[in-house]
Amino acid sequence: MVRRAEAFREKQGIDLRTGHRVEAIGRRSRAVQGTTLDGQGFTQPYDRLLIATGASAVRPALPGADLPGVHPLKTLEDGRRIKALLAGGVVRRVIVLGMGYVAMETVESLRALGIEVDMVKPGTAFMPWLAPELAAAVRAELGAHGIGVHTGLQPQRIEAAAGGLSLVCRDATFTGQMVLTAVGVVPRSGLAQSAGLALSVGNSIAVDRTLRTSNPDIFSAGDCADAYHVVTGRKTWIPLALRANRAGWAVADNVCGKAVALDGVAGTAVFRVFGLEVARTGLNVAEAGQAGFEPVETTIQSSTKAHSFPGASALWVSAVGDRKTGRLLGMQIVGREGAAHRINGAAVALHAGLTVAQFFQTDLAYAPPFGPAWDPMLTCAGQLLKKIDRHLEAS
Amino acid sequence: MVRRAEAFREKQGIDLRTGHRVEAIGRRSRAVQGTTLDGQGFTQPYDRLLIATGASAVRPALPGADLPGVHPLKTLEDGRRIKALLAGGVVRRVIVLGMGYVAMETVESLRALGIEVDMVKPGTAFMPWLAPELAAAVRAELGAHGIGVHTGLQPQRIEAAAGGLSLVCRDATFTGQMVLTAVGVVPRSGLAQSAGLALSVGNSIAVDRTLRTSNPDIFSAGDCADAYHVVTGRKTWIPLALRANRAGWAVADNVCGKAVALDGVAGTAVFRVFGLEVARTGLNVAEAGQAGFEPVETTIQSSTKAHSFPGASALWVSAVGDRKTGRLLGMQIVGREGAAHRINGAAVALHAGLTVAQFFQTDLAYAPPFGPAWDPMLTCAGQLLKKIDRHLEAS
Repeated sequence: MVRRAEAFREKQGIDLRTGHRVEAIGRRSRAVQGTTLDGQGFTQPYDRLLIATGASAVRPALPGADLPGVHPLKTLEDGRRIKALLAGGVVRRVIVLGMGYVAMETVESLRALGIEVDMVKPGTAFMPWLAPELAAAVRAELGAHGIGVHTGLQPQRIEAAAGGLSLVCRDATFTGQMVLTAVGVVPRSGLAQSAGLALSVGNSIAVDRTLRTSNPDIFSAGDCADAYHVVTGRKTWIPLALRANRAGWAVADNVCGKAVALDGVAGTAVFRVFGLEVARTGLNVAEAGQAGFEPVETTIQSSTKAHSFPGASALWVSAVGDRKTGRLLGMQIVGREGAAHRINGAAVALHAGLTVAQFFQTDLAYAPPFGPAWDPMLTCAGQLLKKIDRHLEAS
Repeated sequence: MVRRAEAFREKQGIDLRTGHRVEAIGRRSRAVQGTTLDGQGFTQPYDRLLIATGASAVRPALPGADLPGVHPLKTLEDGRRIKALLAGGVVRRVIVLGMGYVAMETVESLRALGIEVDMVKPGTAFMPWLAPELAAAVRAELGAHGIGVHTGLQPQRIEAAAGGLSLVCRDATFTGQMVLTAVGVVPRSGLAQSAGLALSVGNSIAVDRTLRTSNPDIFSAGDCADAYHVVTGRKTWIPLALRANRAGWAVADNVCGKAVALDGVAGTAVFRVFGLEVARTGLNVAEAGQAGFEPVETTIQSSTKAHSFPGASALWVSAVGDRKTGRLLGMQIVGREGAAHRINGAAVALHAGLTVAQFFQTDLAYAPPFGPAWDPMLTCAGQLLKKIDRHLEAS
């Protein structure tokens, strides 16, 4: 998408080989083995190896998931096929399986084309990783744009139907001309596993801070590899663009002899759904509990602008702190503006290990077009601090 | 503006006295003395005293600065007078003395009313506290909206002229129906000074982290009081809303027996000028040099959105680091969107004392509508890091 293979070969002198499928890594022989598209076997020795195989879209295990018109949305080729189908003009209604980031970004594009959309998931909670008030705001935004949001429906099968495809659930059936499956991704770690490399969270490839796998001559970076979480100090697998890109750079440095160690990820993620920005960083209450913290949570509703300024709308902020240490563990923000960039203040605080009390003291930006004098993150931190203090006093 | 005096008296039981001018503080007698609007003297004893006298607009020392139609813009009354004059319909052109935050926010409102504007200042540099590329972007934005920006012109006098008022400079004369003076503010610290309290930067009232003045029974908060700067550790005077508000709360806590100490300010400030957001935090190169650091600066131009996303525009980021310690000292951002809230990430980093290398590792938010995969602050930090590393290697 960004650069053609020729640019690597001609401008950068990189022996880039497309059409070469690697099938095995010989750790002892320090060589990879595989087959080209025209059936030729090949062996390529290495001094250092980088596994950057990315992630694959999960194919739902449903009868009919292989019917024409059922698509994941992961690769460039997926995108081209979907575009071609939409260009045909027969798609008036689309069923989306899943309600994660990719699903959210997709339904906005579909509505912009005037297409009706139904989103379906088996779980009963809509965006269970978001604080309830924030999830409700996102769900309301989808509803306001005419998206059908159907939680708690167990898909049984996809079948050809009059007018297209039907997704048959236990208690409902949805019909459309396309089914998009956006039910998550898994790391492509099969090659690493076969080579005996250590795997990690969600079967991602385990790497240390220098991106080395359990074999010091083999690196891994991108959506196939794990990372340390800066809040828990433990391994995590959060396949997002910045970490993937940063890990690639770090491998290059380490291979070329400039030692670089990465701190890890804070779990920062943002997306836009119609007019709403949704942002998170760090741990939510459930994750904090699982990681051994004693989480305390506060959610507030504030405003995108000063009260005297025209055009204000609601901004929700939720923050989680640790009762024992007072440490800030995570934050989430939802609003029409100022959520995506605002979350960076909290992300930096997590990297620095700030307590809620320390974060509450920070000198955040204020001018009337951008928020209240007390940034909503500070207001939320102040309320969280009172909650934590009350717990400390009570104990 | 926000709450009427009656609300304090009736709902909160506060003995709020308007029309009482305090003229002296008796530190030994622990009482204030003054005169009411109807000429009665009064004495009021105190256990604890808070001086929250704010700041006054500087009146330029120009002949004619007291003519009708020449206004500062500081108090509610100033605003009412200006609005009344504008409502009269005779104001077609306004001369603004000064090019600070207040001047910038004012000219946008004037243009929205269809009024022509000339801005004049004696100094030759436009916004000398901003990195040159960022200042140039702001100046271009003013120009694009038809604002006359005239630097390096020494005002001599204001005089009545045909069609209104003339501002006579050495090499030019500007005529309009109103002159707005926005040439800064000074702390109202006269009362504190007369009482023998210690003064600080810019004649602000010196307070410690608990907001106590040099007399432990007397507190000061708001635009009249100083603060510690979290980057330099030294006293500073940056009269802005969040610090003023936060200091007020901290005084209340301390007076009521809950000990609160404030860390200080990072010098975070943002404003909007037409379609541009301008944001800063921490020190610029000149300030860093004056504070004893060995500053290194990098300025980059990046983008408000991912390269594949429609509607992107330029985003400029400038960062300053310390050559000796590698510490991040300050950052500035200018762009059509995402500057004001983005700066909070850098502000938190300054509070936490992060190095440029540590900041470069932070997991900042990415989605295509909000910026490139590497947030422009990270790109700038990465370039700054290389510069600092080169200096370290060379030394």
